[in-house]
Amino acid sequence: MIRVTVVYEAQLLRAALVELLRSGGVEVVASMSHWPQGPASVTSAPDVYVADAECLAPSAAAPAPASVSASIVEGGSALLALIPAQRPGVLRRAHAAGATGFVDKNGSKERLLEAVHRVARGERFIDETLALGFLQAAEMPLTRRELSVLSLAANGAPVAEIAGALHLSKGTVRNYMASVIRKVGARNRVDAIRIAQGAGWT
Amino acid sequence: MIRVTVVYEAQLLRAALVELLRSGGVEVVASMSHWPQGPASVTSAPDVYVADAECLAPSAAAPAPASVSASIVEGGSALLALIPAQRPGVLRRAHAAGATGFVDKNGSKERLLEAVHRVARGERFIDETLALGFLQAAEMPLTRRELSVLSLAANGAPVAEIAGALHLSKGTVRNYMASVIRKVGARNRVDAIRIAQGAGWT
Repeated sequence: MIRVTVVYEAQLLRAALVELLRSGGVEVVASMSHWPQGPASVTSAPDVYVADAECLAPSAAAPAPASVSASIVEGGSALLALIPAQRPGVLRRAHAAGATGFVDKNGSKERLLEAVHRVARGERFIDETLALGFLQAAEMPLTRRELSVLSLAANGAPVAEIAGALHLSKGTVRNYMASVIRKVGARNRVDAIRIAQGAGWT
Repeated sequence: MIRVTVVYEAQLLRAALVELLRSGGVEVVASMSHWPQGPASVTSAPDVYVADAECLAPSAAAPAPASVSASIVEGGSALLALIPAQRPGVLRRAHAAGATGFVDKNGSKERLLEAVHRVARGERFIDETLALGFLQAAEMPLTRRELSVLSLAANGAPVAEIAGALHLSKGTVRNYMASVIRKVGARNRVDAIRIAQGAGWT
């Protein structure tokens, strides 16, 4: 029987996912709200982590903790990420964290169970509804520096504070913002933040 | 046995909630991604709708459809809303939609099942972890007009467009924005939008 650990922040939905997996004949050995600190001990490592992609790396500014990759590699586990619709940035970060399975949160129970079995055998699994998202993720138009500027702006920081935090001049910060607005096709700064957050880039 | 209809947008989590409720001895008679159009026929009305609060009324600009209240009243059903953490605005809209049960998405399976039984008997159920949220919801600082301005700004509309949409002068729109920034304790317009969206006001 395949041994699974569930990682999902909201307890009620985590319990519901555990119930769903068990009803499909999977053994759930653990469930947790956040990624465990440090690598899992090899004896307790599950075959598959089923994790909310939004738990893996909440933002571009906070990439997936090294413990995610460490847990997967050291424990010989596979990582299956649950992906929300229309969030190519989240997909991108799940891929960077080492996921080999990508299941649409809007998919069926049967797809999830098929994916668990496939990644446990060492295969990849990508929901067809997410395929276009990979292309959009590959086409992410912003540079790392532009993303940093945008993330700070989205948190409400004024230009002077962004400049100070990134060791840039205020003029350079304004240039980066103008570049972001142009690249994402936004009408202004607020619109650029809305578009980038909607896609999960920040 | 209590008859329940589940309303939750993401199919995988909807299926998981159905499994959770069934494992707790509740009869799930239907599940759907969005609130049904028009009132449910009385013969098919469940005892309780268990609905994601974010499905009920996605934003202040799009209040709960009349069909929510109509379904509840005509079918004699109770509405139990699943509430995300730290979103007093979502709580407020669930209350406005007629919910009598409020369950924290971060609560346990046992709490959800207790809540289902309580609202089915015509009682109220409020998770204690949500109590502070009710206070914050009651203290929502923004007027309806300020919320309209903020919602349009959050969608990326420039001042002139907001003024046109709401039949106001540009100066008045700027005054409303300044008032919003002051009331929510924000540093600037972007910060005000971030705070209001975080609380679920917009």
